[in-house]
Amino acid sequence: MSYEFKAVRRVEFSDTDMAGIMHFSNFFRFMEAAEHGFFRSLGLSIIHDAAHPEIGWPRVRAECEYSAPLHFQDEVEIQLLVAEKKTKSIRYLFKFREVNGPVEVARGSVTVVCVTHRPGVKMKACAIPEAISARITAAPPELLQ
Amino acid sequence: MSYEFKAVRRVEFSDTDMAGIMHFSNFFRFMEAAEHGFFRSLGLSIIHDAAHPEIGWPRVRAECEYSAPLHFQDEVEIQLLVAEKKTKSIRYLFKFREVNGPVEVARGSVTVVCVTHRPGVKMKACAIPEAISARITAAPPELLQ
Amino acid sequence: MSYEFKAVRRVEFSDTDMAGIMHFSNFFRFMEAAEHGFFRSLGLSIIHDAAHPEIGWPRVRAECEYSAPLHFQDEVEIQLLVAEKKTKSIRYLFKFREVNGPVEVARGSVTVVCVTHRPGVKMKACAIPEAISARITAAPPELLQ
Amino acid sequence: MSYEFKAVRRVEFSDTDMAGIMHFSNFFRFMEAAEHGFFRSLGLSIIHDAAHPEIGWPRVRAECEYSAPLHFQDEVEIQLLVAEKKTKSIRYLFKFREVNGPVEVARGSVTVVCVTHRPGVKMKACAIPEAISARITAAPPELLQ
Repeated sequence: MSYEFKAVRRVEFSDTDMAGIMHFSNFFRFMEAAEHGFFRSLGLSIIHDAAHPEIGWPRVRAECEYSAPLHFQDEVEIQLLVAEKKTKSIRYLFKFREVNGPVEVARGSVTVVCVTHRPGVKMKACAIPEAISARITAAPPELLQ
Repeated sequence: MSYEFKAVRRVEFSDTDMAGIMHFSNFFRFMEAAEHGFFRSLGLSIIHDAAHPEIGWPRVRAECEYSAPLHFQDEVEIQLLVAEKKTKSIRYLFKFREVNGPVEVARGSVTVVCVTHRPGVKMKACAIPEAISARITAAPPELLQ
Repeated sequence: MSYEFKAVRRVEFSDTDMAGIMHFSNFFRFMEAAEHGFFRSLGLSIIHDAAHPEIGWPRVRAECEYSAPLHFQDEVEIQLLVAEKKTKSIRYLFKFREVNGPVEVARGSVTVVCVTHRPGVKMKACAIPEAISARITAAPPELLQ
Repeated sequence: MSYEFKAVRRVEFSDTDMAGIMHFSNFFRFMEAAEHGFFRSLGLSIIHDAAHPEIGWPRVRAECEYSAPLHFQDEVEIQLLVAEKKTKSIRYLFKFREVNGPVEVARGSVTVVCVTHRPGVKMKACAIPEAISARITAAPPELLQ
């Protein structure tokens, strides 16, 4: 049962904008990359999972609070924490810090819903498969502060 | 005094992901494009404003709730509404609808802070210049529902 | 039989990088948007074409020469010209100009191959379907200079 | 004197498009990331170089040939080779391979020009500073095939 994962990313030139800082939309790309790294760390994949070929994880909510800007070549640690696990959905919390930096520069949250999807058929929420659910649990409340 | 703007965008191939729908991070790019269109509609510019060369608008908070996916070539209307205007910040609400479609597919919110910024100097929050503030007002509460 | 299409785009904040200009990779997104606009102008779609559900157009080559930078809020005209049409492939030429500007700021080229693709099966080059091929022809050589 | 660098990247969900493969424009972002990694490997930075604060490297030409698609979660090695070094410009060659895969999936090239740039002043080509030029040399021709 896991509730945490840490990814490290370097801010690339193409992540910046003319204000000289990482574009605010890219924090969401970084969150998603950490989410997928979390799944890989559990031996799971967001896709191509032979046991659950029709499972998908669309987002129903995403948010981010920005405390300090990130710049080109900054190395960023994205700490993923499972904030909440329900039957059909998971809410992740993400804390952004510069590597070796004490300060949280941003904090985000993404809620994903487990769905079945087949070509040509509308997505439909479903219970998270047991093989996935059994490996994920909510983080202790004190970590979520 | 203005509180509303409507932008129309077509979802491009590069906006989609392998799930066949618009990537969730791109809704934030669309919101920002609507925000800049709103400024242009007021005769203002987010940048290059000769009267206020050192004013910037970093985001301190961004969020989005997704109700239905957008697909390649969908035409989307992004309705910007000024949800709140404070001395140093503005909060925008964004409602996404397919053009000619009755349904809201997503709803977002972005809070920006007015700052002064010079090369090599840390950004600092400041009062929104009068020439800008005088043209923007909060939308009637009933529009924000 | 058509060989030309003009698209207009405004450079967005998220298209820029910390050098203050449009990131060079985004010229390729603009080219693709013009290509899809060209197809729509012919009553065709790159996808969702009921008559040819398994046709795709992967790129085998893309290039761009940059003469002058584009900046935030610049309005750009992307002129698509069909440079070459073969049995299984099309090469497009793209000329970028600022709207109402005399100068070409960039010139690109993209070669696409018509393929059949089904889920789980490797893409395979095929002849461009007659219904599509009949509407597209190469531009006069003098336009391609 | 260095002429080679290898970067490894994992294809992310946000790098893919609705065709289920990495969007063709993102190969250019990967090339640029390898270029910047090459500079860091030499103890240099594309920016923030105290000794050369006004040096920039705009692209004048970029191209890519695509042999095989990349998919979500593929690990890709981008091999940078200095193809040509002139007084004011450098041309890089990039070979893309899947990590542990024998096959080249794409090959790109980017030509950058060394410029001086100051706020409000037009960029102007200049000789590559000696401290940078002294560390970079063209790769042996046999590597460029």
